[in-house]
Amino acid sequence: MATFKARVLYDFQGEPGTAEMTISAGETLTVTRTDVGEGWWEGLNSKGQSGLFPEAYVEKVTDSNPPNMPAPVLPAQTAEWGEAQQHQEDDWDDDWDDDTYSEIPNNQHPTRESIYSNESSQNRVPYGGQVQPDNVSMTGTNMPVMDSKGTITKKSLNIFSSYVKSGLEGYILGTGKELPVANKKFHIFRESDDILARWEIVSNPYTVQIASPKKTSKMGGLKSFIAYQLTPSFSNVEVSRRYKHFDWLHDRLSNKFNIIAIPPLPDKQVSGRYEEHFIEHRRAQLQEFINYMCRHPVLSTCEVWIHFLTCTDEKQWKQGKRNAERDQLVGANFCMCVEAPDKEILSSIVDPKIDESLNYIVRLDQCIKNLMQTAQDQQKKCVNMYKREFTKIGESFFALGSAFEYNQQGMYSKASVDVKSIGSTYSIIGKLFEEQAKIDWQPLYDKLYIYKGITSDLPDILNLQKLSEQKKKECERTATQQVALADIRRRADVLTYTVFAELNHFQNERDADLRFTMKTFLQEQLNFYKNIVCKLEDTLRQFD
Amino acid sequence: MATFKARVLYDFQGEPGTAEMTISAGETLTVTRTDVGEGWWEGLNSKGQSGLFPEAYVEKVTDSNPPNMPAPVLPAQTAEWGEAQQHQEDDWDDDWDDDTYSEIPNNQHPTRESIYSNESSQNRVPYGGQVQPDNVSMTGTNMPVMDSKGTITKKSLNIFSSYVKSGLEGYILGTGKELPVANKKFHIFRESDDILARWEIVSNPYTVQIASPKKTSKMGGLKSFIAYQLTPSFSNVEVSRRYKHFDWLHDRLSNKFNIIAIPPLPDKQVSGRYEEHFIEHRRAQLQEFINYMCRHPVLSTCEVWIHFLTCTDEKQWKQGKRNAERDQLVGANFCMCVEAPDKEILSSIVDPKIDESLNYIVRLDQCIKNLMQTAQDQQKKCVNMYKREFTKIGESFFALGSAFEYNQQGMYSKASVDVKSIGSTYSIIGKLFEEQAKIDWQPLYDKLYIYKGITSDLPDILNLQKLSEQKKKECERTATQQVALADIRRRADVLTYTVFAELNHFQNERDADLRFTMKTFLQEQLNFYKNIVCKLEDTLRQFD
Repeated sequence: MATFKARVLYDFQGEPGTAEMTISAGETLTVTRTDVGEGWWEGLNSKGQSGLFPEAYVEKVTDSNPPNMPAPVLPAQTAEWGEAQQHQEDDWDDDWDDDTYSEIPNNQHPTRESIYSNESSQNRVPYGGQVQPDNVSMTGTNMPVMDSKGTITKKSLNIFSSYVKSGLEGYILGTGKELPVANKKFHIFRESDDILARWEIVSNPYTVQIASPKKTSKMGGLKSFIAYQLTPSFSNVEVSRRYKHFDWLHDRLSNKFNIIAIPPLPDKQVSGRYEEHFIEHRRAQLQEFINYMCRHPVLSTCEVWIHFLTCTDEKQWKQGKRNAERDQLVGANFCMCVEAPDKEILSSIVDPKIDESLNYIVRLDQCIKNLMQTAQDQQKKCVNMYKREFTKIGESFFALGSAFEYNQQGMYSKASVDVKSIGSTYSIIGKLFEEQAKIDWQPLYDKLYIYKGITSDLPDILNLQKLSEQKKKECERTATQQVALADIRRRADVLTYTVFAELNHFQNERDADLRFTMKTFLQEQLNFYKNIVCKLEDTLRQFD
Repeated sequence: MATFKARVLYDFQGEPGTAEMTISAGETLTVTRTDVGEGWWEGLNSKGQSGLFPEAYVEKVTDSNPPNMPAPVLPAQTAEWGEAQQHQEDDWDDDWDDDTYSEIPNNQHPTRESIYSNESSQNRVPYGGQVQPDNVSMTGTNMPVMDSKGTITKKSLNIFSSYVKSGLEGYILGTGKELPVANKKFHIFRESDDILARWEIVSNPYTVQIASPKKTSKMGGLKSFIAYQLTPSFSNVEVSRRYKHFDWLHDRLSNKFNIIAIPPLPDKQVSGRYEEHFIEHRRAQLQEFINYMCRHPVLSTCEVWIHFLTCTDEKQWKQGKRNAERDQLVGANFCMCVEAPDKEILSSIVDPKIDESLNYIVRLDQCIKNLMQTAQDQQKKCVNMYKREFTKIGESFFALGSAFEYNQQGMYSKASVDVKSIGSTYSIIGKLFEEQAKIDWQPLYDKLYIYKGITSDLPDILNLQKLSEQKKKECERTATQQVALADIRRRADVLTYTVFAELNHFQNERDADLRFTMKTFLQEQLNFYKNIVCKLEDTLRQFD
């Protein structure tokens, strides 16, 4: 491939004795290979030295004279990406959410309120001991992309960046700065001799209803947004949350839980956000997100989520927000909150299981995407194609029936009435198709969307386990102190148990929840066809 | 427009004192106008004389050096058109039907056995007293056309040619040669003070079943054809008829009945004629043709039809064939077989009714064609699109269910089995769609095909009545003998009564038969959707 220039965004210390190369922020590299794998690129620095460096640490230098393009619909906020993360701590109602930027559609330079910025840069213990920014999605390769429907999706992080982000190395080695003691522990049990680990069952399961989104205005109507009302069953106290609050929550959760798959939020929407059907649909999507959260033994009880579900006071909200953002037991260090079985794990048993699971998840992910595609396709076809076909059938019959009315002897024609009623029936069936999509295909799609989010997170989690095992084995080869090695093994085991508990949870969800979803879908399809049968029966009765 | 050459096929005597021009067979004309209307063209003869002549009497001279074209699928029989009508009287099993010419696909010069030729030229009393060939469809403008599906359709005759063919003028004026006395009379009754004329109700209604087409061979397997078994309820004696016999019958009927609409035969088919589904479908189409024939008070009792339904002896068949072909009470002269009410008809009442009916029929014809288009379209979509969509849905579910089987802990997954069975169900529904088209849309299409044939004949019939009225009024202006005028009026009235009886029959058919067809269609659609409901219910039951 052709080489290209890349600017270094963050310092990176190459491991001595390896192919890694030390690079410094601001330096310009010539990238010579991007297919090294696992998030590594190969390049030359200005001194002509060659080596590997993390892709996520550099940004491709784009041509300084951009090609002539039509003006985009959206403000070109990506340029400010790197600068957008300072001084945003107290923005309970600031403009960083999607409700706002469509109201300033021509603002080409939103100064500090970039929607994708994280709100603070916390010091954590990253890979290699460097201080990294919170979110690797700020690099050039992970810019938000707007698709043709006005939906914004973040491209998924690559495995290397999740490794970097997780602080795995620091956790396994027990290096890095001092960490606080966890004030809540999550228990994992072993169910048999097998590696079947599972999370402790939630003692007080609860649900959260998200209801009646309201369009609210502030600043004298200049800004308006949609507020969703959430009512947890354990408190019965309604809290009002906007999409931006969900978005913040999701960032926190993704930041904290690298070993637990976080259900995805509905995609950001640029256009049509105040249309009734969009609002109602987003409510349904957020309900799916909430449902998954509530059913997860860890997620449903974690502090930031409970804070999100319960806080009604602005001051407390800000305090909770700050606490969450300063949380240090994130990434691999979350394992410090986990109480796992004592029994040591044998790599010979675990490794093939992880590989199997990886294959399994990759295939499942593909099949889920495929069914999502079908569901989306059918949804569109119900609204367009099927509706059109049945309407056309209806119109053909109706026209024929109407032609009968022009009876050459002016006689009333029963046949005309009957044939017209066939026409009306098919037109009604056409409308049924249009309405149906919202009832069966869309909920199926929304549920699969959650699972797709999970199945695309799981390979990263499984790979993290592999990297952890790798690190452990590396230590076994080189370690001199037996005590330290036992600790390293234990920490790797806790991580492995966590990964297996997570896999187990996913499997239970899939078997119960996904099955229920399928059943509901089938029931709705059945009702739909029963409805068609009814309409046809009613029409047929006229013929007797 | 550019002029072109035309060869005169038949002598035509121009009316003196009009713009008409006398032309002789074999002469070459230069056509200068084709938009004169009512079937007339304007041209110059070799002497430079200009005048009008019937379009149907000439044939456009095509370029003697034809453009380079790929070889057609069909033999180019059209060149022999004019010569193909001699010495074919006794061809009980000759090769003029569609069963044969696909077996000699490269025969570019089938000598005398052209499939579209009539078998004999009978003397009749044509328009203007000239001797015309039986069938105007032999002119250059009415060549058979093969569409993309290998179906051959004859283009409909224009109104002028039907006028010429009907011998209307001779009938109204009572001129022309002596005609035999009808040995069977058809009675028309007046139902009220209105013009509501109707045919005498058939005293012995009957049905004819067409069953189990058989592929039969002759000449040691060199020639094979399909023979349909017809059993009339009045005789219970089976007769065997091939498509070519139907075709001959249809030619005779069309020739005899210009004032009665003849149901159309299924289109000729060139390819795939021995495929089982084609044979069965043609059987169903022929049954529709037969059903219409049996229900018509005149058609069901006419000699040639009864001969067709009953004759089992080859010698008698030939005799009956000859009789039919020599029938002189054809076209307008058929009215000589009609016993109509005595009451004189007032043009002031009839004329607007005829115009109304014309509008009515034209609109109805349009709507029938439109519904046929829809039926054909849906038939194709059932077999292709809907089947494909449901199969795709099925495959998506099935694949997801299958992905579950690769359980990471090797556990049996009930969800997998259930999701797979959803997949199978949708695939089955896809197949149901494919089979369904034959059960509902195709029969509907076949019935509408009959009606389309009728509604495209009716305007010609109505226009014939208008021409008859016109001729009558012309005579009223110019006639000197009151006796002759009374006869002329009476003959015009009988024709008008016949037309109204035919309209009335059509209306009754439409109200009863078409309504029944619609009911049957609806019933089949209902069964189909009930079947889908059953399949979904069965699948859903697995989830409990």
